[in-house]
Amino acid sequence: MDNTYLIEKDFKELLKEQSAYKEVISLAHWDMRTKIPKKGVDQRSEVVGFMAEKVHQLETSEKMKYFIDVLKDQTEDDIIRKTVEECEENYERNRKIPHDEYKEYVMLQSKAEAIWQEAREKSDFSLFQPFLEKLVEYNKKFANYWGYEKNIYDALLHNYEPGVTTETLDQVFPSVRDSLTELLGKITNSSVKPNPDVLKGHFSKAKQEAFALEVLNKMGYDFNAGRLDETIHPFAIALNIHDVRVTTRYDEEDFRMAVFGTIHEGGHALYEQNINPSLANTPLATGTSMGIHESQSLFWENFVGRSEAFWYSHYNLFKDFAPASFQAVPHGQFYKAVNEVKPSFIRIEADELTYSLHIMVRYELEKALINGDIKVKDLPGLWNEKMKDYLGITPPSDKQGVLQDIHWSGGDFGYFPSYALGYMYAAQFNHTLNKEMNVDDLIASGEFHQIKEWFTKHVHQYGKMKKPLEILNDVTGESLNPAYLVNYLTKKYSGIYQF
Amino acid sequence: MDNTYLIEKDFKELLKEQSAYKEVISLAHWDMRTKIPKKGVDQRSEVVGFMAEKVHQLETSEKMKYFIDVLKDQTEDDIIRKTVEECEENYERNRKIPHDEYKEYVMLQSKAEAIWQEAREKSDFSLFQPFLEKLVEYNKKFANYWGYEKNIYDALLHNYEPGVTTETLDQVFPSVRDSLTELLGKITNSSVKPNPDVLKGHFSKAKQEAFALEVLNKMGYDFNAGRLDETIHPFAIALNIHDVRVTTRYDEEDFRMAVFGTIHEGGHALYEQNINPSLANTPLATGTSMGIHESQSLFWENFVGRSEAFWYSHYNLFKDFAPASFQAVPHGQFYKAVNEVKPSFIRIEADELTYSLHIMVRYELEKALINGDIKVKDLPGLWNEKMKDYLGITPPSDKQGVLQDIHWSGGDFGYFPSYALGYMYAAQFNHTLNKEMNVDDLIASGEFHQIKEWFTKHVHQYGKMKKPLEILNDVTGESLNPAYLVNYLTKKYSGIYQF
Repeated sequence: MDNTYLIEKDFKELLKEQSAYKEVISLAHWDMRTKIPKKGVDQRSEVVGFMAEKVHQLETSEKMKYFIDVLKDQTEDDIIRKTVEECEENYERNRKIPHDEYKEYVMLQSKAEAIWQEAREKSDFSLFQPFLEKLVEYNKKFANYWGYEKNIYDALLHNYEPGVTTETLDQVFPSVRDSLTELLGKITNSSVKPNPDVLKGHFSKAKQEAFALEVLNKMGYDFNAGRLDETIHPFAIALNIHDVRVTTRYDEEDFRMAVFGTIHEGGHALYEQNINPSLANTPLATGTSMGIHESQSLFWENFVGRSEAFWYSHYNLFKDFAPASFQAVPHGQFYKAVNEVKPSFIRIEADELTYSLHIMVRYELEKALINGDIKVKDLPGLWNEKMKDYLGITPPSDKQGVLQDIHWSGGDFGYFPSYALGYMYAAQFNHTLNKEMNVDDLIASGEFHQIKEWFTKHVHQYGKMKKPLEILNDVTGESLNPAYLVNYLTKKYSGIYQF
Repeated sequence: MDNTYLIEKDFKELLKEQSAYKEVISLAHWDMRTKIPKKGVDQRSEVVGFMAEKVHQLETSEKMKYFIDVLKDQTEDDIIRKTVEECEENYERNRKIPHDEYKEYVMLQSKAEAIWQEAREKSDFSLFQPFLEKLVEYNKKFANYWGYEKNIYDALLHNYEPGVTTETLDQVFPSVRDSLTELLGKITNSSVKPNPDVLKGHFSKAKQEAFALEVLNKMGYDFNAGRLDETIHPFAIALNIHDVRVTTRYDEEDFRMAVFGTIHEGGHALYEQNINPSLANTPLATGTSMGIHESQSLFWENFVGRSEAFWYSHYNLFKDFAPASFQAVPHGQFYKAVNEVKPSFIRIEADELTYSLHIMVRYELEKALINGDIKVKDLPGLWNEKMKDYLGITPPSDKQGVLQDIHWSGGDFGYFPSYALGYMYAAQFNHTLNKEMNVDDLIASGEFHQIKEWFTKHVHQYGKMKKPLEILNDVTGESLNPAYLVNYLTKKYSGIYQF
């Protein structure tokens, strides 16, 4: 046993080294998206590439293999055991890809992203098509290296939502999609309409920021372990548990971007700030999956931030910062206006209801691509068809259609479903939470800490100690059940649109 | 030759790796001093320590030794030859210190800095004394490992100002000191006094920043390769040639800190931004010495920023941002007020004349310490004596005396002289520059680019391709000559104080 102790100590040193590289990579990314001067970008990209290569080397090193082999059966420490499992999985998955192919793929990714940007700018899918074809081929090849049981797409899903399979998604997504399109129909046909014009008005960046800071503070975001900065594409990033930063974007003619965006990123940040410190410097010290992460951000953004209770308690605070025109807008009218449903082309600008439909379009297409059921060249047409079918609108250009998202240009297939899963998880958590406390009352009285503590107790603290579906089951007592999302949305929108 | 080419290629890869580590260290430092949330500091310190160890490992690696040995005589590339010389010197100096001692010393440094902070806070030298004694002992030991010709202190001076010896300083410093104390006497006895009260008034941070940005821009600082942030202890830092950042501190009751501080750091930054890009990713891509660096910052801060010509041309711009009270202050009165001479306890708050006297105090004491001529425990008394002798004032506490500077707590002996040398270099450069162009006219017409280009041509571009005294000689045609500084100060202050 003494020997095991010493090996564990060395293993922890290796993990610490890995964490050090990851911290500088995160810092470099944060800086590149918020502060870096233009001319510093090229050199920085090389530096990040170098540091990422170091992480990859450690993950696939003989030393790592040694620790995995020795500690797998010997350790009696829960955290180390879970860490070894995580490391073994990374090791196996990385080792299955020949190093030359990995390197070619990394180069392809960075080229493809640049080309995608150009293609989007010019709204010219044909520029991007050959790169996307290669990315799909690589992902199919990798999926075969990694292996899967029933569907090749499962191997990719696993990168973002381990435990969730294509089979599960195909059981759940179509019914959600149909329920949402049905709801959308009722909303479209309703004669009651919120009036979004009341939200107009020049709202200075400084005042939006001041309000955003107040809200983050009320949510329980710890500013001694984080900060808020401005960026083009908002994100939250954890350098470590004690340094989790959020960013937002300000549109002085539309405060919704910054306000709801900050609450969303704040939800991600609460997750990372409240991971148990005993997991620090291990690969377990982060959110367990993209979907569970998104459940946290979406819970705060929508279930809290767009709720009637929230604006009941925070509208006066909002008016302290907002343009004078809001003084004449009653609370109820404001609440309805920020919940307007309107099919639109761009996913990240979508409302709470149509958002998941955007995800269905992507899921169905990428699953078919990876399974070889459709061809890359047919994507633009298929995209537009599905948009017409589910949202009732046809994008006027590929820029507003198939070219809008960055994910595929980085080879990230299997990522999109986590957005919709996150929504379903959030609704399911919300249902359980409401059995334990009166959430609306807490929100209406601004008592967020009980909500935050509940999530910390049930979700945050575990980091990667539990798998996503394990958390879902432990917290809610059942497996993925999309009924909660459909019920929540039906209740909310039947109230607003009165059907 | 083909073989040499291949080895050079590999050598460049190693240097690139070193640059990558250095860039993340610089970024981490910049972030720690400007942006990091409080709770992130501990973890970050460890990360920086880890990365610094990586640089040290590379510098002292067998691989490095191999490149040095092979390329030293074989390379025909000037940059590689100089780089090899630089690497060899680092290699030799580092290898001369036993690794265990180096590690102990690094730990001592970090402990000593924390203790020094406490000691300064409490103004209690006895807390710091045992640590300072150890630091002195280590430095003596290291100096002996490194070797020297005449004076043990030379081995330390070499770290900051290679080529400058104790002998040179002892030829130059006493006469400067005597000239300055004589000048100070005349100033003190003059019945003509500037009125610093005219500088008072609340000057908002935002407006100070706006003015500072204007001035940096006019100096030719490239904001596409840099940025300005707020900090407690201002600094400039180069992540690489294309990303050189400056920081400043705002005192809303005294604009001088931010305005002159920004110009000072801007001078450092111009140096790093204008190094020849062919030196990128080598250890030559930085200023050649602390003294030459300081010559650039001091030139811009004082020879430009505190000149009559500068305020002739920029006072109206200043008044656009300054409190309304300045409208009633004539340009000449303002110029005199920002050049008030007044002996004070704190070095970094000293005026242009007494600043070098603060350096003399430190130089004489640290030289004596390293030579074993005085004991650490006698420092506070000796410090106060010298302050009385040279500046005519006695610090009321060690906090305002021997405990004020961070340098010794980090074991940085031999650093202080570079501040005074920087002043002398700046005055000597200024003399040469004035032979080639009418500097006052250029400043008065806001035509700074010619001045900047002159320094780029003669100083900046070379990075470490030339040693400090080599640059001084090449530019001015003579070796270090302190007369230029004394003449410059005499002329300036006899004008202001009319003696």
